[in-house]
Order: sequence, then structure tokens, then C-alpha cells
Amino acid sequence: MADSRFDPNFTQHVINATGPKATPRMRSVMGSLIKHLHDFARENELTVEEWMAGVNMINWAGKMSDEKRNEGQLLCDVIGLESLVDEITFKLAAETNDHATASAILGPFWRHDAPILPNESTIVHGVDDGEMTYMHGIVQDLQTREPVVGAWVDVWQASTNGLYEQQDKDQVEHNLRGKFKTDDKGHYAFYCLRPTPYPVPNDGDYISVAECNVQARTDVFKGPAGKLLEYLDRHPYRPAHIHLIVTREGYKPVTMQIFDSQDKYLENDSVFAVKDSLIVDFKPLEGNPKATLELEYDIVVAKVDEGTGKTG
Amino acid sequence: MADSRFDPNFTQHVINATGPKATPRMRSVMGSLIKHLHDFARENELTVEEWMAGVNMINWAGKMSDEKRNEGQLLCDVIGLESLVDEITFKLAAETNDHATASAILGPFWRHDAPILPNESTIVHGVDDGEMTYMHGIVQDLQTREPVVGAWVDVWQASTNGLYEQQDKDQVEHNLRGKFKTDDKGHYAFYCLRPTPYPVPNDGDYISVAECNVQARTDVFKGPAGKLLEYLDRHPYRPAHIHLIVTREGYKPVTMQIFDSQDKYLENDSVFAVKDSLIVDFKPLEGNPKATLELEYDIVVAKVDEGTGKTG
Repeated sequence: MADSRFDPNFTQHVINATGPKATPRMRSVMGSLIKHLHDFARENELTVEEWMAGVNMINWAGKMSDEKRNEGQLLCDVIGLESLVDEITFKLAAETNDHATASAILGPFWRHDAPILPNESTIVHGVDDGEMTYMHGIVQDLQTREPVVGAWVDVWQASTNGLYEQQDKDQVEHNLRGKFKTDDKGHYAFYCLRPTPYPVPNDGDYISVAECNVQARTDVFKGPAGKLLEYLDRHPYRPAHIHLIVTREGYKPVTMQIFDSQDKYLENDSVFAVKDSLIVDFKPLEGNPKATLELEYDIVVAKVDEGTGKTG
Repeated sequence: MADSRFDPNFTQHVINATGPKATPRMRSVMGSLIKHLHDFARENELTVEEWMAGVNMINWAGKMSDEKRNEGQLLCDVIGLESLVDEITFKLAAETNDHATASAILGPFWRHDAPILPNESTIVHGVDDGEMTYMHGIVQDLQTREPVVGAWVDVWQASTNGLYEQQDKDQVEHNLRGKFKTDDKGHYAFYCLRPTPYPVPNDGDYISVAECNVQARTDVFKGPAGKLLEYLDRHPYRPAHIHLIVTREGYKPVTMQIFDSQDKYLENDSVFAVKDSLIVDFKPLEGNPKATLELEYDIVVAKVDEGTGKTG
């Protein structure tokens, strides 16, 4: 127990209430959660007011969430929990060859029905204020370093206003996403935007005290995740990134976000997703009327049963 | 760090993101919460699916909460967190003579405007299926054991249908609550119901998948707290109890729930609030046309600066 001033048997008493028909996983996960939350309360001598502030934040998150905004998830993101679960999932997937697990970390903006596009085409439509980038590279086999022919490179990114197409009624359907197939040299190529940093949703309509069960507080103008960032004196920005998933039958899928090395939020991503191996350089490109920047990015994939499929 | 398979610096990196303008309390409480939640995720190798199930439960709780139902609070209650915070608060209040803190644990059904009633009157109106109880006793000074004259005994309880009056449109305003003042012998007396056990809210309207952000689940017919109890193979019942708060200028307020010794849920209260010192005996009463049971209950109060004001 964290603090002997308090009843040393209480937490075990709560854990022991779990009945015989609970699944073993439910029993162990919830037992661990109860232990950690009780230790947290004791270590901080949490007050009723503080606990109730947490309850209000949970209820408020639920009330603000809908198909296009998930404040419960965002609360987890700003305390690094989604990135940590991603790390755990990557490790488990690498160890167990579990394709289904690896593809679970696609994030909220991936779509299963992205358009299949020919190499050398663009995913950018109706965006005038972006830096056009020619992105291309080779998909290679981890062991043989031979090109992998017929691999799918599925790409998606936010527009310059910080919104993915499904969040933004002003973007055309499937804007800034596409699936490209590597050619007989293992090569893929497309035009996209140099990504731009954007804030996680940190606004919020005013919610009345009654609506959001926030007792004794009337200064509620943000969503709970935005408010938490404010309490923690943190900015809401994510560094610029492009999402990729690379798949090929017989290979482990590779899911990643790649980050612009020049981005000022690389060191303090509001959701803690940056890894050194995923930082890339956008270079000036001359003589191509369709783009002013070039990003050459090779992707290494591992056959099932050949270790991890991560690049870098 | 809980498991060296994972990045040993990640959690501190997240904690270090807190900015210089965060309050010291916010910094330490949130730092501790981040550490515990990260350790929880690592120790259990939490999957994306499990984490997302937790997120959905949080959002679902918010959507179901309103003025009469607080599912975020109820989720905490069924894992013992409210009772633990109560214990912490009682200890702090006893140590610091903090009246405001002590009165914070009144629970969601206390009302500040309960009617002032004469001794020997009843708080029961329009309830036909209850066991009428004559409750009376002395309020005593902890040090002198002298009666305390002019103390307020504020009482409230649920009706036989398990609902407090503000939850139940069929009960008259202020049913089953009242404030009684001790007489010149320190004596209080009133008629109330023998309390009956009731379930915490464990029903719930059907919420569509889109409405509650529950992905890939369609079996959602309960609130999240009810669902959690089901997952944990636990019943939703609270043992029968009467709420009391006793106040007198110059004395520490005493806030408590007292429990019927014959209740079958004493050992497994769904919200873990029972303490041995608060278990009482209802005895048969003869010759009183107004009641069939008697509960004699003396309450000890401590002067400010004279130790704790708890009975028992």
C-alpha cells in the first residue's frame, strides 16, 4: 500500500469483489487498474473536489464526443497513453506476427476505401497554399534487400488547414489519400503536400453547467483535452506528418507516421508520437513543374517470421 | 519503469512536457496519474482494443450523465474510488479541523434546504410498504460525555423503491429528509423508514453505436457502470443505510451513513462504503402505534481541536 495512514486492506477488498465468472483477462486488467488508481489517490491524498473535477472531465468528454471528435481518446492522447499503447502493440506484433494487431494502430483518420491511384499521380485536390512534394522510393525486403514488387503504399495526410477530408466539408471526398502499388522495380511515387503542423482539437463550444455536470465552474469554453493542456501549460500542436501503411501478402504490414525534420514541434508533439527513426528530410526539387520539394523514402518490410518490419 | 521491454524514458518525457505555469498541485497530481496509467498499460501490455474499450466507456458515461445520474461518478464508485477519497478526506479533516472538507463528502443526495422539523415527528410521507422506525438518541461531547444541546441532526434516506425524492417524481418534495435540533438533554428523535437495499443504477437505454462511439459492439443495453459490474461478475446492490450529518457551532461536523446489521449486502457493498463502526441494530418496538422498530443511536461529537468527531 502506498501510504500506511490509510486502511491497508481496502484495495484488496475491492479487487476481491470480482466474481468467479469474470474472464481471467478482465480480472487481471481491472485488478491492476484498481490498484494503480487507489495508489494514485493515496499518494496524492486526493481531495473530493479534485476527484470530482476528474469525474466532470470524463462526463464532459463523453458529451463532446461524436463521429468526428473523440474527446475521451484525446484525453488519453495528451497524456501519452495512445502512443504508449501503440508502442506495446508494435512490440507484440513484431514478436507474434500478428497482422490484425499491427493494423489496429492506423489511427482515427485512415479509411479502408482509399482510391487506388497510378504511380506519379497526385493526392492533392483544391489546396492552393501547400508546398507540393514529390514523394517516391523503393519498398525493399528486409533480408534480401531486393525490391518488393506489388506492395501497396497507402498514404493519408491532413490539409493545410489541419483537417483530414472527413473532418472538412470543404474538401472533396478522399482528398489527400491514395493507394499506390510498387512497380516491377519495387518503386512507388506520388505527389502530396509537405505536411504542416496542426493543433489537436482544443476549442469547444460553451457547455452549460447543467449540461456537462461541471459543478461550481462556469469558465468552460474548451473541450476537456484542450482544458487539460491549458492546466498543464502545454501547446496543442502536433508536428507535421504523413501517414503510411505498407502491405504485401507474405510480409508484415508496416504502419507509421513520418515527420518533417524541420518541424518546430518535433521535440514536443502534443500526443508524443515522434520516433527518431521516422524523421525525414524534404529537399528542394528543381525542374519539375508539379512540385518544389522532393522526399525520397525507402521502406523496408519483413517477411512473416523474419523479425520486425520497421524501417530505420 | 514497470517493464524494461518498453522505452524506459517515455513516461518521464510525457511528464516533463508540463509547462512552467502549471500549478504545483496540477504538476504533481497529473505527473502521478500519468505514471500510474503508463505503468498500468505496460504491466498489462494493454492492447489497442482494450484501451479503446476504456475510451468508449468514458465517452458513454458522459453521454448518459445528466442532473439525476452521474455515470462518471458511478464508474469510480464501483471500483471503490469514491469511498477511498472519502477515507482520505475524513483523515485530513480530522487532522486539520477543516469543516469545509468534512462537509464535502455528503454525497449526491444531500440537500442544503432540508425542512426543519420538531423532534418526535416523521420524515416519511406516502410510503406504505416500509417498516416504520423510531430513531432517537443523544448527541454527546467526546471529552466530557455531556449532552450537546442545540446540535442539528440532518437525516436523509431513499424510499422503499430505492430512490431519493429528487430522483422520483412520485415522492413529495423533501420526502424522507429533515433536520432535528437536540433538546436541553441533547436528545433527538424522529420517525423514519428501516432502510432497504437498492441497486446502483445498472440499467440503461439502448445507445446506438454512433451515439456512444462504441465501435464494433452492439450489445449495449446498460450504462457503463452497470456493464462494468457485469464484466466483473458483481451485483449492483448497496446495503440499506441512513445518511446523517450532525453539526453544532464549535464542534466538528460528523457525516456518516449507518447500516442495518441484518442487511445481506453488508459484506459486499457495491460501492464499498461500509465501516464496522457504522453498523447498527434495529430492534422490535411494542406499544407505539407509529412504529414497529426502534433504533437508538448516540452520536459523539468533538470540539474543534479535540481530535476526531467520529462515533464508534
